[in-house]
This record gives sequence, C-alpha cells and structure tokens, in this order.
Amino acid sequence: MRLLAARERTVPLGAPMRNASIAFDAMTASALALVAEHGGRRLAGFAFDSIGRYGKGGLLKERFLPRLLTAQPGSLLDKNGLLDPDACVRAVMANEKAGGHGERPGAVGLIEAAAWDLRAKALGVPLWKAIADWSGTLDANPRIAVYASCGHFREGGGLAEEVKAARDAGYSTVKIKLSGDLASDLARIEEARRVARLAVDLNGCLAPGRATEWFEAVAPFDLAWIEEPAPPLDYELLARYGAMAPAPLATGENLFSFDDARNLLRYGGLRAGRDLVQVDPLLAYGVGEYVRIIEAFERASWTRRAFLPHAGHLFAAHCVAGLGLRAAEAAPDASLPYGGWWSGAHVADGTMAIPERPGVGFEAKPNLFALLAPLAE
Amino acid sequence: MRLLAARERTVPLGAPMRNASIAFDAMTASALALVAEHGGRRLAGFAFDSIGRYGKGGLLKERFLPRLLTAQPGSLLDKNGLLDPDACVRAVMANEKAGGHGERPGAVGLIEAAAWDLRAKALGVPLWKAIADWSGTLDANPRIAVYASCGHFREGGGLAEEVKAARDAGYSTVKIKLSGDLASDLARIEEARRVARLAVDLNGCLAPGRATEWFEAVAPFDLAWIEEPAPPLDYELLARYGAMAPAPLATGENLFSFDDARNLLRYGGLRAGRDLVQVDPLLAYGVGEYVRIIEAFERASWTRRAFLPHAGHLFAAHCVAGLGLRAAEAAPDASLPYGGWWSGAHVADGTMAIPERPGVGFEAKPNLFALLAPLAE
Repeated sequence: MRLLAARERTVPLGAPMRNASIAFDAMTASALALVAEHGGRRLAGFAFDSIGRYGKGGLLKERFLPRLLTAQPGSLLDKNGLLDPDACVRAVMANEKAGGHGERPGAVGLIEAAAWDLRAKALGVPLWKAIADWSGTLDANPRIAVYASCGHFREGGGLAEEVKAARDAGYSTVKIKLSGDLASDLARIEEARRVARLAVDLNGCLAPGRATEWFEAVAPFDLAWIEEPAPPLDYELLARYGAMAPAPLATGENLFSFDDARNLLRYGGLRAGRDLVQVDPLLAYGVGEYVRIIEAFERASWTRRAFLPHAGHLFAAHCVAGLGLRAAEAAPDASLPYGGWWSGAHVADGTMAIPERPGVGFEAKPNLFALLAPLAE
Repeated sequence: MRLLAARERTVPLGAPMRNASIAFDAMTASALALVAEHGGRRLAGFAFDSIGRYGKGGLLKERFLPRLLTAQPGSLLDKNGLLDPDACVRAVMANEKAGGHGERPGAVGLIEAAAWDLRAKALGVPLWKAIADWSGTLDANPRIAVYASCGHFREGGGLAEEVKAARDAGYSTVKIKLSGDLASDLARIEEARRVARLAVDLNGCLAPGRATEWFEAVAPFDLAWIEEPAPPLDYELLARYGAMAPAPLATGENLFSFDDARNLLRYGGLRAGRDLVQVDPLLAYGVGEYVRIIEAFERASWTRRAFLPHAGHLFAAHCVAGLGLRAAEAAPDASLPYGGWWSGAHVADGTMAIPERPGVGFEAKPNLFALLAPLAE
C-alpha cells in the first residue's frame, strides 16, 4: 500500500444557532481525502471533521500533510504491508513539541481517520471491524446505541418540535442545550421532557455561585446526564460539581490528548460507574490515542461503557461499535452533511445497526459524499 | 486609532540542531504587521513569533485576522481611543470554544503583541512603559536581567565554545540542553560549567526510572535551575520531581493559557520562593492573559520574581521590564533574526538596558526588521 496524494478542503457549515458559549454562523469543517495504491487498485480514504472547532486546512497544509507524503513509505505500514493509522500519527508528529493540544490533535485526527478508512477498505471490512481487530476488542458489535443532540438556541424557538422530530426518528434519548440560567433552563427542560428522555448540555457555563440551586432544581427530572457544567480545564470546579450533581456528569469533548484526559481522570473527581467521558477521537489524534486513553481509565477501574464520544458522526459510530463503547452522538437532521446516518440505516428504540460496507461508508451518505468525492479525483 | 490592514508571512528558520525532543531543521515562525491610522499618521505594529511551535499563518488567515479586521472599530479601543490589545483578544476569540490551548494562543498572542507595538508607538513610549502603565506595575525598569539559551545538540559539538561566546557577550547565566541520559548529561555539564553558571533544560525527557540517580548526580553543580524535567502536562510527575530536585525547577513554556497555568499551580507541586514559571506571553494569548496568570500565582503567595518568560525575544524583554519579572531569555547569536538585541544595547554582567525607542523597537534590529518591514508597505 502506497500513498499517492492527500487533499483537504475547508467547507463552510454555518448555521444560525448557538450553544451557551458560541455561535455557529461562521463555522467551518475540514474534508480530507488520502489517495493510495493497493494491490494494483486505487483506493481513497476519507475523513470529515467534528463540528465546533473550525476546519484545519492551514495546519494540514503547512505541517501535517507534507510530513505524511514525505515519510518513508515503509514507516507508515504494518507488518502485512497495510497502512497503519497509528504509524501515520507518529510520522506526522515528528518534530512537534509536547503539550499544547488544541488544533493539532484535530488535524492529526483527520489524517488518522482517513488512514483508517483506507485500511478498512483495503481489508474489505467495515471500519468497526478493522478497529475491533486492531484493538483486540472482543465485544465489538455493529448494533450500537445512539442518542440525538439538538435543541440549540435559535431565533424563534421550536425546541419541542425539534425534540419530537428526533424522537419520531427513533431516538429515545435527546440532548438539549442549556445556558446555566435557571429559569430559562427549567422552561426548556419542561418543554422538552414531555417528548423524550433528556440529557442536557451546559457547554461549560454553569456559574459557581448558581450551581447549588441549579443542581437542586433539576434533580426531579431524571436527566440521563448533565454535560460540561464546568469549563473543560477547571478540574477542581468539576470535582465540586460532581459532588453535588443529581445525575451523571459527562465531559471531555474539549480535551484533545491522552495528557489532558489523564488529568481529567486524576483531578476531575469523576466517578466510575456513574460519569461519562466524551473525548472525541477525531479531534484528539485519532483511534490510537483514544484507545490509550480508554486503557488509562480501565486501569483506574472504569469500563468502556463510560465512553460516549463527542460528535464524529459516521466515524465515531464505528468507534463505538468497534471498541464496545456506550453510545454514539447524532445530529438527527439528515439534510445536514454531518447529520443522520447512511442510506438504509434505521434508528429504532435508540439503537442502529451500521450497514455492512467497507470502511466508514461515506459513499452511502450522499450529501456528505458530495463534499468528499471531488477530493479523490 | 483605526486598523487598516493585517499581514502575516511565515518564514523558515530551520537550523541543523536539536533539543531532547525535536529537531529544528524545518522550523518556521510568523512575522505579523498591523497597519493603523492614528491622528492622521500611518503606524505599523509588528510581532514576531517565539521559536519552537511553528508559524501560525493558516490560523491567522482562516480565523483571527478576518475577525480582527471586521470587528466594530470602537470595540478594539480603550476610553482614550487607543488600540486596547486585550480588547483585540476578546474580538478575535469570538465564537471560539473553551479549552484546547495549542496553536490558537500563539496566533492570538501575535495579534496582541502587534497591537501592543501599535499602542506604544501611538503613545510614543517604549513597550515596557506602556505595559507598566496598563498593568499598574510600580517597579518596572528598563534595565533587566538576561540569560543566554544555547547548547543545543549539533553535529560536531562545540558546546564549550558556544557557552564561552555567550559569556564573552556579557551573559553570566547560560542554559544548555540535556537529554536525560546521565553519562552524556554529566559530560556536557562538565564541559560547560568551566565557562559559566549553568541552567539546564531537559525538554520533558527525564525518564521516571532514572530520575533519582540523575538528580543526585547533578546536585554538586549548583545549577541555576533545571528546566522541564517532566512532560508539560504531567503535573503529578513534576510534583514528584520537585520533591527530589537539588535545584529550582522551571517549567511552563508549553502551557499556553490561564487554565493550564492554573492547573500547574494547583497540581504541579511547585514551590513559591524556589521554582520558576516560564509561560511565554507571545504563545499564550498575550500580555493580558499573562497578567491574569501572574495574579493567580500572586494570590497563592508567589512573587513576580518567579516569572521567567520563554523565548519571545525583544517582546518578552519588554514584558520582563514592564511587569518586573525575573529575567529574559536570549539566543545570544545576533546573526539570527531572533538572536541578540537592539543595535546599541549591551549586555554586561547578565543585565541589559532596553533602549529608549517607541514600541518594541524592531526597527533597531536590522536582520529582524528586514522580515517585518515589507509587511507594512
């Protein structure tokens, strides 16, 4: 297997909506293709960004794709001559200083993800199977739990309608955005809970002075989890919130490395058997780093059922299946390139079976594949 | 004061040398100019990267410069109508999620630094004076302590000659690179200590299994400090090293935010009155964030004498003078654009007086100004 080309395009994904911390009007995301030759065949491996941290075109073009394309070809392969995604990460991380895990882990994660698509296609298996075999996961299963993430702040409201649409699409747990303002948050919970079981996302914006009252007030609603009550790197505040929370806490979507996830484990006061870890492999150097994170938690008596990757869409769903994780996150609106699932996949009772196709299967999600296919031509 | 244009160029700064973790052959850095109109005059503010984390051209062009240039002009000014560097940071950080402090803080730091150069030029004062006035620093002083940073790993050696050249140039403390390999490190210390008082830099590479023996072996050498013995985000290991170190520890050059610096303070086991903090304002969102970091340490009984900013060159020297910090770092080779100081500045007995010029004074460092001036044309 030999890499021939790598192409990135940064696509606008702006939408007139907000969470508690940012607006999405000018949001962008990276689409990436790696083109390779394998056994006389031309193969294309694709990756598409998680949403929320902007595209990584500059970094990919300045540093990471040139290193990938100039690496010794043998250094990128496993002993069977197949592309080794973790080896690709090592190659592109040459001469990068430690620490500072921000945009870089997302740029590298896209390369790792596209390398996984290539590897699985070369093996002729769905990505989840390739990940399960590589990681030695015994209880991998293409039928996974999925939950819907919606309920952003929008002009004109429509929260109940959005949650109802998600429930009608087969999701049994729906996550909505809150702001940390108790009156408004309670009104939103009341509006949405009539329709589905709720998880809520504070995007780091629950003020310490309001927390006691806030947690007490939401206690009656049997929330599936309360997401990111504290800013992502304030482990001390998170531990305080964990001690008072009436529901599981979930966090980690803004931690992008093993180093940062280990600090969450060491200092965040999270509880095995209750809380959830949302590190996003696509934004955090890829599956290899993610498995090392899982193993660090397992050494501290956590199980994989605590892992609930942020965003990541089709790619993350394969990670959930291939590594035996708790559930995958879905933007339920299939008209979005990063919403819905593969043609022919059906969500029912909060679960979905990943269709049998080689690789990630972007080819079976037409409005997303339309962004990717031109990069491989 | 009104911004007219912003231009960045990524310049190659490759050199055939290594530290314990990376090679510098393909290193790049960003040169940035902000052009403004002020009182009928055209002014240019400049910034030049710290070295080691690569240029930030992609991020500046994709996200941060467009936000700066499209911000409401009034939102960037203080009540006197002068450009407010901290307000520029708030403007360019619009719609950025929390956490993930990697490349972004360096891109934003460059904008903040160029805004400082503009502000000081508009005021007609040296940057250190503008920073002292803004921050309310009472003991600001243009005469600062400086130390030389050299002794990278190079083909052919020449360590003693390099340290001797630094001493002959007026530096009394010289920092050299070590690797964590005890025999090689002792040989390097022996070679260099005959010439100058030494600090040593491990760039995160002291293995836990070797640490006890290593610290014992270097104890007799009266090292000024031992820099980055542990990886930057492994606070637990750093605290263990701090308990056994025979000299002050210094760290923080790879922490790029208030959030990360606060975690260092909370979990790193550093000791006020002994250890040193090397956060680099230019790589960490600028002077505003840096002052907030200093204040967090002051609230924990630290003093500003513990602050020793990494790299940053002319800009960091002004921060040291304007905020009353311990010392500035110098690459002593003035033939490098980021080495030596202003024409007419002289180092003697490890101190130097910043010349009286408006702003940073890049205009008086010809081989650096040659990289910056074309951006303002």
